[in-house]
Amino acid sequence: MSLPLQAARRAVEHRARLAELFPWTTSPLLIGAPMRVFSGPAMAVAVSRAGGLGFIGPGATPEASSTDLAEATKLLKETPLKAAAATTPTPSLLPVGVGFQVWNGDLDSATVAVRTHRPCAVWLFAPRDGQVQLDTWTAALRAASPGTQVWVQVGTLQEAVAAAHPSGADALVLQGAEAGGHGRSSDGIGLVSLLPEVADALHDNTNNTNSTRLPLVGAGGIADGRGAVAALGLGAAAVAMGTRFLAASEARVDPAYQAEVLRATDGAAHTGRTQLYNHLRGTFGWPAEFSPRGLLNQSWADHEAGVPFDELQARHDAAVQAGGTAAWGPEGRTATYVSASVGLVRSVDDVGAIVEQTRNEIKEILSLLG
Amino acid sequence: MSLPLQAARRAVEHRARLAELFPWTTSPLLIGAPMRVFSGPAMAVAVSRAGGLGFIGPGATPEASSTDLAEATKLLKETPLKAAAATTPTPSLLPVGVGFQVWNGDLDSATVAVRTHRPCAVWLFAPRDGQVQLDTWTAALRAASPGTQVWVQVGTLQEAVAAAHPSGADALVLQGAEAGGHGRSSDGIGLVSLLPEVADALHDNTNNTNSTRLPLVGAGGIADGRGAVAALGLGAAAVAMGTRFLAASEARVDPAYQAEVLRATDGAAHTGRTQLYNHLRGTFGWPAEFSPRGLLNQSWADHEAGVPFDELQARHDAAVQAGGTAAWGPEGRTATYVSASVGLVRSVDDVGAIVEQTRNEIKEILSLLG
Repeated sequence: MSLPLQAARRAVEHRARLAELFPWTTSPLLIGAPMRVFSGPAMAVAVSRAGGLGFIGPGATPEASSTDLAEATKLLKETPLKAAAATTPTPSLLPVGVGFQVWNGDLDSATVAVRTHRPCAVWLFAPRDGQVQLDTWTAALRAASPGTQVWVQVGTLQEAVAAAHPSGADALVLQGAEAGGHGRSSDGIGLVSLLPEVADALHDNTNNTNSTRLPLVGAGGIADGRGAVAALGLGAAAVAMGTRFLAASEARVDPAYQAEVLRATDGAAHTGRTQLYNHLRGTFGWPAEFSPRGLLNQSWADHEAGVPFDELQARHDAAVQAGGTAAWGPEGRTATYVSASVGLVRSVDDVGAIVEQTRNEIKEILSLLG
Repeated sequence: MSLPLQAARRAVEHRARLAELFPWTTSPLLIGAPMRVFSGPAMAVAVSRAGGLGFIGPGATPEASSTDLAEATKLLKETPLKAAAATTPTPSLLPVGVGFQVWNGDLDSATVAVRTHRPCAVWLFAPRDGQVQLDTWTAALRAASPGTQVWVQVGTLQEAVAAAHPSGADALVLQGAEAGGHGRSSDGIGLVSLLPEVADALHDNTNNTNSTRLPLVGAGGIADGRGAVAALGLGAAAVAMGTRFLAASEARVDPAYQAEVLRATDGAAHTGRTQLYNHLRGTFGWPAEFSPRGLLNQSWADHEAGVPFDELQARHDAAVQAGGTAAWGPEGRTATYVSASVGLVRSVDDVGAIVEQTRNEIKEILSLLG
């Protein structure tokens, strides 16, 4: 059997494994990515309620993860998921996940949050010291909550192989270069190349029996059923969406930011990766390997035209102060992180409707292709 | 019905249309890209013989297209395709296509080649003056051979919309950023973002009844059935492969180049887009919008280390003179154009086996996903 078919069969096994671990979900598993601040408890719970797996994103402070997980717990107590109660392998786990931005994350706060609230999965990304730091986090969070799955987001083949070591990740999120928000700054590549080669490299890694057992989650530029089918075809066992959920009713996002997500088209032309917007927002220190994709708005145009940073900063701060479209509109000035597939996002919908529509599209497209 | 599903249904109609136009082919249509020199008549005929559509690439001289088409005609006379004879809409068309590199192509030579040999399709790419030049070529080649389909390769949303005007292309080849050889130098994007947004933009282009009728061909980084399923899921009606066919027995390629294709892995890390190799080979004048993806070998390392161009040129020329692995090996110095998915190419096989295996993988993967 060819390597591509071997990989496709492993993905089917991985889908079954994910269905066991997250028994309230429908296969193929759709995932709400842990977007910083935007992916709050209401959104994460709504994704899981729709039969997906919702992740809470890192909050504005390290303590925010605990607050958000507590809120998710409350929401789920008020209205439990239908299928979750009796059947989870570890019944006390919360049927939502939580993401941590490792390079400047606070492991102590994260450990408290995970020990207290026991999310079914954690999603780690952007370490400062590569796999070493991921291993430290993985060991600490596993100890804090046995049964919690540890997912590691990677954007390169090398990172993927490193994260797949025997005591490493339980699943890999493969993020293609088209992704919004933070990902690999210059050495990433689209899923068409990344996903199949990672799948085959894990297979060839014969000294490591763990590596072929890892479900691969496709991420980056997936905004509807078409991208999801593509990821599944490439060998993903599950599919994560970020930008599509920025246009969810439950997203924790300014309406003017959300309006920009709907308005923007042609992400290849109108988005780019740059640290400029981090710096304008006062965030310095991201490891050089990572940078965010966002809309190239007026701050970028001025920067390209040679306006000095201090002046850019003044204009940016005034726009943020004014808020609304001054900050995020067509002539906006602050960070509007979106994927290169932002042009596919055209309406604000409830999370449940987004998940259901994506799932229907997957089914219909596969039946048209079959 | 959602836009993604409308696009998926149109792709099904387009598949049927392609099956009518190229009746010897099996749906979904697999295409051998017109790689310069590498895609000779033996390869193009072998792809069509396997039920795909083979394209002859631009040759070393403008007259080479006529020579190559004559050779393809001869091969097809000796052993005709099984299904082609009686059923083609225009029976006198040759069941292989030919590609032209427009920016420095010679339209007179191309017109003679197409008038004389009547390929079933031409594939135009890399104009110097954008759509204007493509229109000139399209009109001339259509006049030279009515019935010959005119395909235009694009890498951006803007190019796609421009090429879809009522008297423009008969099909669009959408080339994602992972592609090998020449494509968009800096404003391209992966298929996950490009293909669906183009499909929807053509649909919205309501003043142009042609645009929804255009089959979309997915290209760029597709090297096995996984990439092909991804392209089809994204809305492609047909799928083109280039780099995979560099490792075909029938490719017109130096064995040392071919060996590099098999050896190279991790295209994200080991390939890049640069004009350096064109310049080392004495090719100047490519429009700035285009650049090639190839292996970043010793010339690139020396260039990055600050070695002056004259010295790079001397080392390059000596390596080319020596030939074999000195030119293309792991420490090679000359152009080794490959896609970012080069790591998926692991063996030299006959074209027929490559096409059959890819087709089987598509079928099996879809049945596993269905």
